[in-house]
Amino acid sequence: MRKPIPIDEAIERVMEWCREGEKEYVSLEQCDGRILAEHVEATMPIPWFDRSPYDGYALVADATERASTHAPVLLEVVGTIGAGSVWDGTLAPNEAVKIMTGAAIPNGANAVVMVELTKEIEKDGKRFVQIKRKVNEGENISRVGEDMKQGEIVVEKGTVIHPGIVAVLATFGYDRVPVMKKPKVAIISTGSELLHVYEPLEKGKIRNSNAYMLQAQIRRVGGEPILFGKVADTFEHTLHVVQKALREADVVITTGGVSVGDFDYMPRVYEHLGAKLLFNKVAMRPGSVTSAAVFENKMLFGLSGNPSACYVGFELFARPFIKAMLGQPKRYLKKVQAVLQKDFLKPNPFTRFVRANVSYDDGMLHVEPVGKDKSNIVSSLAQANAFIVLPGGTRGFQAGNRVDVLLLHDEGDNVWS
Amino acid sequence: MRKPIPIDEAIERVMEWCREGEKEYVSLEQCDGRILAEHVEATMPIPWFDRSPYDGYALVADATERASTHAPVLLEVVGTIGAGSVWDGTLAPNEAVKIMTGAAIPNGANAVVMVELTKEIEKDGKRFVQIKRKVNEGENISRVGEDMKQGEIVVEKGTVIHPGIVAVLATFGYDRVPVMKKPKVAIISTGSELLHVYEPLEKGKIRNSNAYMLQAQIRRVGGEPILFGKVADTFEHTLHVVQKALREADVVITTGGVSVGDFDYMPRVYEHLGAKLLFNKVAMRPGSVTSAAVFENKMLFGLSGNPSACYVGFELFARPFIKAMLGQPKRYLKKVQAVLQKDFLKPNPFTRFVRANVSYDDGMLHVEPVGKDKSNIVSSLAQANAFIVLPGGTRGFQAGNRVDVLLLHDEGDNVWS
Repeated sequence: MRKPIPIDEAIERVMEWCREGEKEYVSLEQCDGRILAEHVEATMPIPWFDRSPYDGYALVADATERASTHAPVLLEVVGTIGAGSVWDGTLAPNEAVKIMTGAAIPNGANAVVMVELTKEIEKDGKRFVQIKRKVNEGENISRVGEDMKQGEIVVEKGTVIHPGIVAVLATFGYDRVPVMKKPKVAIISTGSELLHVYEPLEKGKIRNSNAYMLQAQIRRVGGEPILFGKVADTFEHTLHVVQKALREADVVITTGGVSVGDFDYMPRVYEHLGAKLLFNKVAMRPGSVTSAAVFENKMLFGLSGNPSACYVGFELFARPFIKAMLGQPKRYLKKVQAVLQKDFLKPNPFTRFVRANVSYDDGMLHVEPVGKDKSNIVSSLAQANAFIVLPGGTRGFQAGNRVDVLLLHDEGDNVWS
Repeated sequence: MRKPIPIDEAIERVMEWCREGEKEYVSLEQCDGRILAEHVEATMPIPWFDRSPYDGYALVADATERASTHAPVLLEVVGTIGAGSVWDGTLAPNEAVKIMTGAAIPNGANAVVMVELTKEIEKDGKRFVQIKRKVNEGENISRVGEDMKQGEIVVEKGTVIHPGIVAVLATFGYDRVPVMKKPKVAIISTGSELLHVYEPLEKGKIRNSNAYMLQAQIRRVGGEPILFGKVADTFEHTLHVVQKALREADVVITTGGVSVGDFDYMPRVYEHLGAKLLFNKVAMRPGSVTSAAVFENKMLFGLSGNPSACYVGFELFARPFIKAMLGQPKRYLKKVQAVLQKDFLKPNPFTRFVRANVSYDDGMLHVEPVGKDKSNIVSSLAQANAFIVLPGGTRGFQAGNRVDVLLLHDEGDNVWS
């Protein structure tokens, strides 16, 4: 009844439906970690006035024409310009103005000599600066637009805002920053075996860990999770909650209720809604009973109730869909190659994801499975930093083989395969 | 007057004063991205009741002793156990109970046969399951504590809580999670050249970008930034604001006011407070005029007003101090080696940090400086993902040289050098 399809094809079927989300404005103070919804442009040239790159003296270059160690030139220091202030006069050739790094070059001046090359002296109650070499016209002046022209694109849309980008936004006066709205992602838990985290244990039951795990996964990729809690194990209630979630969220994730067990209502829910089923089985372990469906441009993911399968299903299918809504070019987990440290001889017709630890040693990436790789052991999800990807249809792998590895806590990369 | 010290020594002088901060409790829903303040222990064995790892039939193994393809055994199906429910009776040898993945093994049963190996039939209005091979005692039963013993440490303190750890916390009933308190980090901007981001431009002035950049840097390493705004360019006001910040924060960062310009009050502020000066010059560029001082167990960092110098100063000195307060073993930017793609021939007595882009190509890390490397160009901070570290006292570097590189957006590593 359920026909498994290859992972690549499942991802493709999901991504055919992806669309870019909306934008909103947030304050500069709250924009870090969000995703730029527009290019950042230079709203002014940089520098936007001629300025001094050093502490020194602004002067008229011609006045130093004949300066030398033996015959230093003396210029009268007629003022001091701190960064941020402006000297109102116009400099005459026999005058200099002390100038701080970043301050505006005064009218009449056409060069700056660095403070380290000068000596200030007092004579007849006046201040003079002694200059021992010729200063060329234009020396030590940062000109308007020298670093950046007005209108230049500084950062492209789709970029995650890190501290260096915050600095650029501040420089260009973006006190409100256009960012992508966080896609709303509903989480619905099914399965009468689930207890709330604060409930006492009961025989036969387990605490609901997938909902909280998914919440953290959704936040990490830039979405806004909405917990819809646990539905009672009836078709009517499941349908009711899914319909409510579809009204409030862009993406609806259900966990559990997708195996061949007797109490699974999700296939009937899809059918009743009239959602277009994209797939209901993927040739992978864990997570073969993962499904995806589209309803009115919203995506429904039916993930396994098994924690590892749920984790993998989210990262493979929901992650790129959410990232695409955020306009991000890098949508998938980063894939690298590493050297397997242990035999892994189980043959499997399906592609396997093995929780593992990657380490960098002697210029090479090494990877080793984490503890027991049973998909129902939640502790190995805490300890893994990667999944080893073992293609199906092989007879297993030996220590020393190069294998593909998906990095779980990396920023992500641009391609899946 | 200011004696530059090597970077390593400056870091060491700061880290001599580091101390672990306090812990607090947050809800499970809000714990992701925080740092564990205690080990996470298994509060119960996993599984905590004998359970079925598959959909199948629970039975008494002896009853299948003589089962074969030719002489299948028929057991009466006397009930169904969904995940989360319990079957109250005790199984007799001629009986079976249908059981779902994860459900508790009923009393009397000592094995499970997978549903794929069986066939259910109806006879005389009763349900029977047909079994064609011997099932061994204990087969397909996950025993109490098989995966994890009660009291085992699952995740160590100091770990950043990622989604896999959230799943473990939920499983073990941690509805309140012990995390490290975010160190409070005050940001004080000095320099009369600074405009607020929303103010119109004025000649000679620039917008305050460092405060917002630092806010994002502080958040990224796990601190809680407190913006104290811009102080007027007087000694009294600077002192007043620094004293206020010291009362409210664990770390106080000032920017600007540390060059040899005329309007720098920070050295006098340190002196007036009676703060112990750790250094006031470091043999590096940008950021040579970086200072650090200790006052009543709180750390004061005086960073340059120049954006790149400010950025580097934070990452080198404030970052590890904050991470240490958070109890994190990995405190420094990750350092890797990469092949330089362009000559960089400027000699320099000081260690240089060159804003750069690292890329991974053909199994090798390559690194290339970003645009113009003038420390006053803020745009290159937005575009860089790394700093090339060029040790001082050399005559420059050529394309093809292997150089050290600090990764700016990585999770960090355990060592500085």
